[in-house]
Amino acid sequence: MELLDRVRATTPLVHCLTNSVVTGFTANALLAVGATPAMVDLPGEAGPFASVADAILINLGTPHAAHRDAMLEAVQVARTHGTPWVLDPVAVGILPIRTALADQLRGEHPTAIRGNASEIMALAGAGSGGRGTDATHSVADAQHAARTLAHSTGGVVAVSGPTDFITDGDRDIYLGNGHRFLTTITGGGCALGAVTAAFLAVHDTPLLAVTGAHMVYTIAAQRAADKAHGPGSFQVAFLDELATVTGDAIVAEAIIS
Amino acid sequence: MELLDRVRATTPLVHCLTNSVVTGFTANALLAVGATPAMVDLPGEAGPFASVADAILINLGTPHAAHRDAMLEAVQVARTHGTPWVLDPVAVGILPIRTALADQLRGEHPTAIRGNASEIMALAGAGSGGRGTDATHSVADAQHAARTLAHSTGGVVAVSGPTDFITDGDRDIYLGNGHRFLTTITGGGCALGAVTAAFLAVHDTPLLAVTGAHMVYTIAAQRAADKAHGPGSFQVAFLDELATVTGDAIVAEAIIS
Amino acid sequence: MELLDRVRATTPLVHCLTNSVVTGFTANALLAVGATPAMVDLPGEAGPFASVADAILINLGTPHAAHRDAMLEAVQVARTHGTPWVLDPVAVGILPIRTALADQLRGEHPTAIRGNASEIMALAGAGSGGRGTDATHSVADAQHAARTLAHSTGGVVAVSGPTDFITDGDRDIYLGNGHRFLTTITGGGCALGAVTAAFLAVHDTPLLAVTGAHMVYTIAAQRAADKAHGPGSFQVAFLDELATVTGDAIVAEAIIS
Repeated sequence: MELLDRVRATTPLVHCLTNSVVTGFTANALLAVGATPAMVDLPGEAGPFASVADAILINLGTPHAAHRDAMLEAVQVARTHGTPWVLDPVAVGILPIRTALADQLRGEHPTAIRGNASEIMALAGAGSGGRGTDATHSVADAQHAARTLAHSTGGVVAVSGPTDFITDGDRDIYLGNGHRFLTTITGGGCALGAVTAAFLAVHDTPLLAVTGAHMVYTIAAQRAADKAHGPGSFQVAFLDELATVTGDAIVAEAIIS
Repeated sequence: MELLDRVRATTPLVHCLTNSVVTGFTANALLAVGATPAMVDLPGEAGPFASVADAILINLGTPHAAHRDAMLEAVQVARTHGTPWVLDPVAVGILPIRTALADQLRGEHPTAIRGNASEIMALAGAGSGGRGTDATHSVADAQHAARTLAHSTGGVVAVSGPTDFITDGDRDIYLGNGHRFLTTITGGGCALGAVTAAFLAVHDTPLLAVTGAHMVYTIAAQRAADKAHGPGSFQVAFLDELATVTGDAIVAEAIIS
Repeated sequence: MELLDRVRATTPLVHCLTNSVVTGFTANALLAVGATPAMVDLPGEAGPFASVADAILINLGTPHAAHRDAMLEAVQVARTHGTPWVLDPVAVGILPIRTALADQLRGEHPTAIRGNASEIMALAGAGSGGRGTDATHSVADAQHAARTLAHSTGGVVAVSGPTDFITDGDRDIYLGNGHRFLTTITGGGCALGAVTAAFLAVHDTPLLAVTGAHMVYTIAAQRAADKAHGPGSFQVAFLDELATVTGDAIVAEAIIS
């Protein structure tokens, strides 16, 4: 778990273009894990900022017109500079504007895609989406779609659920850590997309970076759950754990195959 | 308090078009009480999403142009589908754009309207608004306006204050629960509007649904206040209580007439 | 520390036009310290609301087109009414749109400017900005630029860092309170700008008001740090401390010269 130490040592600058519900929590999760967040999401600034960022997150939760323009700007710069970027296709399949945008962004070769089972299936053309931010499919349902999507984009695809599934199309990883409390706070998935971007900034093998991010995030969650009495205290304990969990603890507690 | 169990059992999908200050807290309050929030607030998506939502919240706190278009889209769909929706007329009366929008939305027959005394009076044409989000009138001042508004819209009107007043124009309910800490955090009223929408999704009698939502919310607040040392710890304890309070506790602690 | 009591007694109405990441935390910090926040950030309403506000915050963190128009509206009204206002030039120097806007706003004589060393230097024309929201210069580097900026605007300039530097161009104040935890949560600086606006509303000498705000804020932070286990619990304890710290404690713990 040298990756976590690298994030803390190098404080990667993570450029987030994300939805209006989770901006604060996402920034706090990135700060907790040791990265520096910046939410530059307006046209005319998203491109210039992307050129100095270490990684970029594109989250489609509330894609207003100006945000969409800013996302396309940032992604173009990311591709030119070889900057890793994460696509989080929130609620694609069930809503027209984000679905069209996600299809376009899928063609821009995201370094990683993170979503729930229904989102990954919809993005791969294998399903019609979930119920808002809730998946209506299981992670197992989405495995084939995830591998297909990984092959077609050349990136890593991560499906979040009780057991996370991460694949580059050839190699599959199953990660059994986490806690249901993550689904009782808003932004539990969205902030994971941002933390994934931070880890992509510090390692050249996306499959390892994505897996490392998911391990740190989900193990911090289960450690926090031990101290929580409900979703309010869980959120507080989770940020504390993200900031203090050690690489040794990650290695000791990982449930991975 | 079977209503609370129904929310937890059916996880109603609550479509929120709300202000940029309280999106995160509102989503967390809905999740805590057992509902599923979705903040789809852009034109072109708000209408389609409203057609699958179980209830809708329209909160006028920061009504930018695109949000206004999205609100009108969602409300049209709600009316067509018979989906219950809540209007929260934040700071109407003192600001021109939201006041005009609120007047228009009032004509669309909201299932429930929730606001402070000054907002309800302004919306009923009986006052000129408050001081930002602070009421400058008492709940007692607003009773007549609330009844008038309930009659003219055919909906339920709830006036928030030290004692909440809820009316369908004919029947009046006074609810004495709550805690002043709710006024020391942002979104204390806004999230109540969202929780009210969640309860409207699970019961056909709006007066009972609105009352149930206010009881759960204000009793969770007073239970949280017992554990809090200030507004920061109150907010945490409040989300924990919303998630764990039982129907029996609600019945035992309700101050209602 | 009579200033803190005045804020709590008069609950100044602070009109915030701020970035989308920190709206909730900023509102909660203002409520905790005893002020009333209102985030009216749309054109056509920002001007009218500014005319009833006691102080105004202009924060350039996510300056979308409509926000920029609203900021200019509010500042014009502030100048006409003599309402104190604070400029927080987030990430100026490195991004074109906000840098141009900040240059324009600088000419409108902000009552106070608050930023990190790199932002203050960039705004004074003495540097090219930092790294997102991180300063790449020390507070000492920025002292000359801060004095220059204070002279050219006629306002007070505050540079945030391990030791805060506050100047009206002639008198310099160094404030050694605070805690590094403030840099591990998002909005730690942005909310200070808002609290500074609240204090400007209750005292006619901006240098004293700005200093008072910084003392209360940074001493609340160090008291909160004693109770925190990480950034999550720090944020909770910080809001509690802002709400409960006494003037006597501020006087006893201030490290000022």
